[in-house]
Amino acid sequence: MNETIKTMVNHRTIRKFTDQKLTDDQIQQIIQAASFGSTSSYLMAYSIIGVTDPEKKAALASISGQPYIEKNSHFLLFCADFHRHMIEASDDEKAIISENVSSTENLLIATVDATIAAQNAALAAESMGLGICYIGSIRRDMDKVDQLMKLPEHVIPLFGIAIGYPDDNPEQKPRLPQKAFYFENEYANDQIQAEQLAIFDQKIEEYYLSRSTNKRTDHWTKQVIENLKKPRGARLTPYLQEKKFNKK
Amino acid sequence: MNETIKTMVNHRTIRKFTDQKLTDDQIQQIIQAASFGSTSSYLMAYSIIGVTDPEKKAALASISGQPYIEKNSHFLLFCADFHRHMIEASDDEKAIISENVSSTENLLIATVDATIAAQNAALAAESMGLGICYIGSIRRDMDKVDQLMKLPEHVIPLFGIAIGYPDDNPEQKPRLPQKAFYFENEYANDQIQAEQLAIFDQKIEEYYLSRSTNKRTDHWTKQVIENLKKPRGARLTPYLQEKKFNKK
Repeated sequence: MNETIKTMVNHRTIRKFTDQKLTDDQIQQIIQAASFGSTSSYLMAYSIIGVTDPEKKAALASISGQPYIEKNSHFLLFCADFHRHMIEASDDEKAIISENVSSTENLLIATVDATIAAQNAALAAESMGLGICYIGSIRRDMDKVDQLMKLPEHVIPLFGIAIGYPDDNPEQKPRLPQKAFYFENEYANDQIQAEQLAIFDQKIEEYYLSRSTNKRTDHWTKQVIENLKKPRGARLTPYLQEKKFNKK
Repeated sequence: MNETIKTMVNHRTIRKFTDQKLTDDQIQQIIQAASFGSTSSYLMAYSIIGVTDPEKKAALASISGQPYIEKNSHFLLFCADFHRHMIEASDDEKAIISENVSSTENLLIATVDATIAAQNAALAAESMGLGICYIGSIRRDMDKVDQLMKLPEHVIPLFGIAIGYPDDNPEQKPRLPQKAFYFENEYANDQIQAEQLAIFDQKIEEYYLSRSTNKRTDHWTKQVIENLKKPRGARLTPYLQEKKFNKK
């Protein structure tokens, strides 16, 4: 197993960081790595905002409910972005493009572009010994994030990544067995999946009982059912449409 | 610059592959690497289908308009997946969860989860000397891909990755200058962006004039305007809604 794959399979989410700051060179390498990810039709339909302003970090910590954002070294906000593509367009072209990029297909294009860049950034950071945590919960109040970052039409925040020097070494959270999520030539039937989920639940029970903090009895299947019984993102859809995304 | 970051910044899209097959060990490492990506709320809301069946590969080549899919060694189809989360749920719970996961927020959760896994898979392959190409154009006919892969409700194909031994060494396509897509603490104004785009257009003109195949005079700003003037994904939205995604 080579160093790159070792970095991936050793991934842990880090939620506690030391005070040590990232150097400009580290940030530059992370952003450069992000930029060389694959991109759909060469659109590069994303932007990244590096957040260092303590007030803005405090606001993001409050919005997301993740207090360690205030203390981590560097916060990267990933946005879906079709704004720059229109800067050199005529008014007539802008009107056509604005209409076209408001489709769900283009939301997917930009979300995939941004996430490919983000995962390159995350792995680049981890390959340098840094720790990371994806912050999807900035979507709990996209209007506020939008105002904070002064995002124009056709630009929306998708998620953040907190990066810093780890001040914690948590156990690794197990992943689904390969046979539960990797299939050959067609989707697996429910019986095959149920068998694999039973194996995974056994593993997860051991994980939650043996880990050093927040021990409990839990199963993955039960946990995700409880989680998904809660509705999410009621304000997301109107916000996206106001920003000219996902309208058709 | 470490090996992992070198792999990222040396990325090229490979569209021509030798006949050499991937070994089971390579595929296993790629899938394992994919599985250890970050995941929102531990949902792991994606599945991967490895396509080796020649007829199915030919069908995917035809749908996507990318003929080399027929000849590449291994094709990975990434799907957004909320099906497995319901396998152990009661009928009442299934009804609630089906309603909840049909939100745009949950489409984003699954798309980001799947793309993080995909980029790990892509980089794992590249770190072993293999070449990759993301195939978003399988979305040109999601109904057909759906039938081919026998996807149940709450599972949709997002994109594929063709993987194989490179039979080509194309020039690297330049990326936007950092100042055009990486901002600090707030989104950059149009003047700053326009300056960066002018610098990039100059670079792109040189790239298209100097590359070994398909030489032409072109600018990025012009290319993306022409591209985005074409509407895309008319059938995507009804398909997603039929599969209980992105309904609210």
